Amino acid sequence: MNVQAYRLAQFVALLFYCFLGSAQADPMPSWNGVDSRNRIIEFVQAVTDPASADFVPEAERIAVFDNDGTLWSEQPYYFQLFFAIDRVRALVDANPQWKTQQPFKAAIEGDTQALMAAGEHGLLELLMATHAGTTTDEFAIIVEEWLATARHPRFDRRFNELVFQPMLELLDYLRDHGFKTWIVSGGGIELLRPWTFEAYGIPPEQVVGSSIKTRFEMRDGQPVLTRMPEINFIDDKEGKPVAINQHIGRRPIAAFGNSDGDLQMLQWTTAGKGRRLGVLIRHTDSEREWAYDRESGVGRLDRALDEATERGWVVVDMQQDWNRMYPFDTAK
Amino acid sequence: MNVQAYRLAQFVALLFYCFLGSAQADPMPSWNGVDSRNRIIEFVQAVTDPASADFVPEAERIAVFDNDGTLWSEQPYYFQLFFAIDRVRALVDANPQWKTQQPFKAAIEGDTQALMAAGEHGLLELLMATHAGTTTDEFAIIVEEWLATARHPRFDRRFNELVFQPMLELLDYLRDHGFKTWIVSGGGIELLRPWTFEAYGIPPEQVVGSSIKTRFEMRDGQPVLTRMPEINFIDDKEGKPVAINQHIGRRPIAAFGNSDGDLQMLQWTTAGKGRRLGVLIRHTDSEREWAYDRESGVGRLDRALDEATERGWVVVDMQQDWNRMYPFDTAK
Repeated sequence: MNVQAYRLAQFVALLFYCFLGSAQADPMPSWNGVDSRNRIIEFVQAVTDPASADFVPEAERIAVFDNDGTLWSEQPYYFQLFFAIDRVRALVDANPQWKTQQPFKAAIEGDTQALMAAGEHGLLELLMATHAGTTTDEFAIIVEEWLATARHPRFDRRFNELVFQPMLELLDYLRDHGFKTWIVSGGGIELLRPWTFEAYGIPPEQVVGSSIKTRFEMRDGQPVLTRMPEINFIDDKEGKPVAINQHIGRRPIAAFGNSDGDLQMLQWTTAGKGRRLGVLIRHTDSEREWAYDRESGVGRLDRALDEATERGWVVVDMQQDWNRMYPFDTAK
Repeated sequence: MNVQAYRLAQFVALLFYCFLGSAQADPMPSWNGVDSRNRIIEFVQAVTDPASADFVPEAERIAVFDNDGTLWSEQPYYFQLFFAIDRVRALVDANPQWKTQQPFKAAIEGDTQALMAAGEHGLLELLMATHAGTTTDEFAIIVEEWLATARHPRFDRRFNELVFQPMLELLDYLRDHGFKTWIVSGGGIELLRPWTFEAYGIPPEQVVGSSIKTRFEMRDGQPVLTRMPEINFIDDKEGKPVAINQHIGRRPIAAFGNSDGDLQMLQWTTAGKGRRLGVLIRHTDSEREWAYDRESGVGRLDRALDEATERGWVVVDMQQDWNRMYPFDTAK
């Protein structure tokens, strides 16, 4: 098809879009009609209205989302750690020395206190032992199988059911307005990619995360990528703008996070020229989810909360602003 | 707009597409009606026809392209080296010691023989000195300014005019059939991103390349990403499948290269399940471009050419298969 024909088809699609769009219902029904929701919508209207001084061409409408605590829950500890513990248990027969060796012993026994006492180094050791050693294709299958069977202890739900309904609506709303939505997570990139499209509508090529190194090898004449027990990149704090630049190559115009690990991503995004949006999701609902901020070990929100006021970022109060938490909840 | 309305709009667009598409002219007029062209078209038809056993859903239609020698020329040496030499000359006043120090002296004097004699280490030193030390925003401007003024010695054209017209048509043809087109280049990622959309229709987020490390810093309260004189990733040979996995997270179904640096990318792509396409562009036209393969220092094509036969990859003979080389050429 030539360019003219394509443009005509696009134009016709646009006509239908405008006509049908006008009859649409509230695009974000799980959000109460409060300040945070209104500021998000106002931002989107400003950057998508061609008559607005804040208009941004569609190609530059990049929105980045943290995952843990922003798109899904992260308590009592990051869901990736549940995965690692389950992997230790699945692999212990092949590694019997783990039964007496920390932090593996703690993982096998479900002793989370001893696990946390192992510190960053111990956790890293756990991640390496459970995330490396397979090919990339094999690992994707392991993740899919785990996600289909593992259950969160509090809700007895699959982990990918614990995604925030209001954020799903927000993702759809942004994409309906020409945004490209990306995940920029401290979690492992290969632990996310097998399921983010189904859960969030975000395809693998728009997922950025922490990673271990991989190596290209020939096995029986077939090329494979082997996962190595070596850190490649930690996509957290100062790493997030670095990874955004590496993967996206454009500065986002909107960033959504929930913890100090997202501080630099929000700084980087909102310091760009023109209108920008920074949003922090604040965990304030111990009844439907969890309440934590400045003192939390997981998902600490302290410095970023202070900067939110200075820099005019939107702070979403989950308890007040959301009438529904998870897709399986009914609206309150 | 809700999902139903969006689907309806898509359907109407599709109707127009089909109707108008049937009246379209040859989508790749710069390709002669030879075997290589026909095999490419046959592949695209097979993977896009819903009735075909080889059908691939649109989201999985990933096509990757090497850049140097595949989408634009790479002789008498990689265009990035022209950039580095020009940068040395622009920076010599601030670095007077370069006047007597190799490989900088050779760059200043245009002594390419001495430059090549500096070997890989010397060239790396040259790249570091000329590619690091600025912020990412500053570097993008430097690249844009260079590209707007620098000229290729043989053609007296801007370097981004030396792109292959048949490949531009191929990129359009693939995108018209729902492919997402990516660059996977051994060249510097930040040297590509400022201009690939205009030249190839490939946006920055679909460009993968070699890179140096960047560091997030605050300068006068403003966040910047500083380019460090340290290799981050070499996107060549075994690195290409690794980078494809890191950036795209899916295995491509089609890969286009021209040298042994693309061998592993083609192996990785074509070893996937289902129908796959591997294409090598062979430089056979010393009159309109250059002729080189097994013995060339730049863009050597040797092992990959042998494997092309074994693995059924398409080999494009530029001299025979293309009736036009660059956009400024008239068809022959």
